[in-house]
Amino acid sequence: MDHSFHNDLIVIDGLQYSNWNRDIFKQLHAGGVTMVHATIVYHEKTQETLKRVAEWNRLFESNADLIMPIRSAADIRLAKQIGKVGIMFGAQNCSPIEDDIGMIEVMRELNMMIMQLTYNNQSLLACGCYESEDSGVTRFGKQAIREMNRVGMVVDMSHSAERSTLEAIEISERPIVISHANPLSFHHAKRNKSDTVLKALGESGGLLGFSLYPFHLKNGPDCTLNDFCEMVARTADLMGVDHIGIGTDLCQEQPVSVLEWMRNGNWSKEMDYGEGSKSNADWPKPLSWFRDSRDFPHITYGLLEQGFSQDEVSKIMGLNWLNFLDSALQPIR
Amino acid sequence: MDHSFHNDLIVIDGLQYSNWNRDIFKQLHAGGVTMVHATIVYHEKTQETLKRVAEWNRLFESNADLIMPIRSAADIRLAKQIGKVGIMFGAQNCSPIEDDIGMIEVMRELNMMIMQLTYNNQSLLACGCYESEDSGVTRFGKQAIREMNRVGMVVDMSHSAERSTLEAIEISERPIVISHANPLSFHHAKRNKSDTVLKALGESGGLLGFSLYPFHLKNGPDCTLNDFCEMVARTADLMGVDHIGIGTDLCQEQPVSVLEWMRNGNWSKEMDYGEGSKSNADWPKPLSWFRDSRDFPHITYGLLEQGFSQDEVSKIMGLNWLNFLDSALQPIR
Repeated sequence: MDHSFHNDLIVIDGLQYSNWNRDIFKQLHAGGVTMVHATIVYHEKTQETLKRVAEWNRLFESNADLIMPIRSAADIRLAKQIGKVGIMFGAQNCSPIEDDIGMIEVMRELNMMIMQLTYNNQSLLACGCYESEDSGVTRFGKQAIREMNRVGMVVDMSHSAERSTLEAIEISERPIVISHANPLSFHHAKRNKSDTVLKALGESGGLLGFSLYPFHLKNGPDCTLNDFCEMVARTADLMGVDHIGIGTDLCQEQPVSVLEWMRNGNWSKEMDYGEGSKSNADWPKPLSWFRDSRDFPHITYGLLEQGFSQDEVSKIMGLNWLNFLDSALQPIR
Repeated sequence: MDHSFHNDLIVIDGLQYSNWNRDIFKQLHAGGVTMVHATIVYHEKTQETLKRVAEWNRLFESNADLIMPIRSAADIRLAKQIGKVGIMFGAQNCSPIEDDIGMIEVMRELNMMIMQLTYNNQSLLACGCYESEDSGVTRFGKQAIREMNRVGMVVDMSHSAERSTLEAIEISERPIVISHANPLSFHHAKRNKSDTVLKALGESGGLLGFSLYPFHLKNGPDCTLNDFCEMVARTADLMGVDHIGIGTDLCQEQPVSVLEWMRNGNWSKEMDYGEGSKSNADWPKPLSWFRDSRDFPHITYGLLEQGFSQDEVSKIMGLNWLNFLDSALQPIR
């Protein structure tokens, strides 16, 4: 198959958490990915986050022919131009800032461009989607959003509960994202989002990245490319085609112990199975049409087949993310 | 005045946060205090808490003639017997355990006998009394309470919001405390507690320590001893005389900078004035009849004057705390 249309695109993946190594970077490269938002921490606190940054610095050094750090939106264009895969740092929990608002700017100086206010559970900032009730953004959370706005760090509510998400959209003076989730109407899962949230997100100038994690998809690992692309089309109708992108949630080569840690952190003495269950505790089986980053072209051509124009596909595959980040990563001076 | 009745009592102060030094220990001694629950941390995290413990160890060493560490309820009786002031460690926030349930047992092994689930703001465990809404005890909070129950660490909801407090009473398999607060009906303050909470606390076998911090008192620093003792009497009617004690919230020799840190931690870029206000930002003026720990006898004789029997006064001044701790500090084997 001729991938020249795909290969000309700026392709942005709004979230991956892989066990990063040279093979995975090669796959990203082969899949024509311009930039990936790489989760560098889940539950790590400030000092552990610095260690993750140091590990990444070593990866940048030893894989300089394949990858480069993203320190601004301009770097994404540069990555495309020089044929490297840009790596943008992000946090799936607010643990890197611990209880210190000053750590937001410190983390941004270390190129942490995006941070979730919560990861499933209640955090100091807001409520996660696994709590039974959600009282919204906290006192600290309100100040944290304002500070993230100021320094140009994107607010990500992918793992947050409904009310907190709506409040974050309202409180934030800059548009926010849900980097990796799908509409609840497509598949009922705690992590997927209601039409109310998605509409508010789109109307506020925000962005949704569609997840390819089987737990977020209709029929799980058996979800077809066609089902996925139909969902994209329906969501484009709901939110507008300028407010959607991709956020695969690809977690490659991670052992089950990492999945357990993602789900349980250190807070639980029992086993929490997250989106799985006791009898289904492992990573889900991957989609046949999206096994790893080399399969990105399948999405591009699936969307064209679905009836999206080439312009629209360019937006969904990366330009919407790029346009969003062009503004969102600028600090307010 | 003959203080022999007072001097024979076991006197327990359910909370102080002073800038501990030899003079303050002498005052505790002079006031006939058998044991004080000393806040050793507010916002300190795990490692900083270890430093506070180390500082206390030095204080124990250099003031061994005056004070002794409390490592069990039996140590309180020992302190009385040998004429020393017992120091029981406590935390006003759950920050020492960070996000790690395993730290509860570690802290208990370091003789942290009591911990608040929140300090004014939302924590990872529950909601504080300064948030606009309270969604109750979190997923982590439920597990933390169970673990505190197991290791014999007392749950303290003094700075928590109403719903979280009621849920903690319900969830905890062992009685809990509100170590330092007063009835809302006596003085309207965010930190004071409704009759609903106080009744549930008493019925569950818990304990309220009456605060002498002027912001928690009717007429503030001008509250009279008689007003205070009347409040105690009314609360005894509500909760039962076995479920009340003292928790002065005495904060001696602390500079305003410490008050600001107590109120703001590291979470705020603005100044939060807590129970004060911009025009009233300093520590409150102390009560004329309770300037420091030497004034404990005033409370004892005030309560007798109020009509409490000697037995009842013994309970309120310390025996209720002692009975509570006799059971509460036992780990479940």
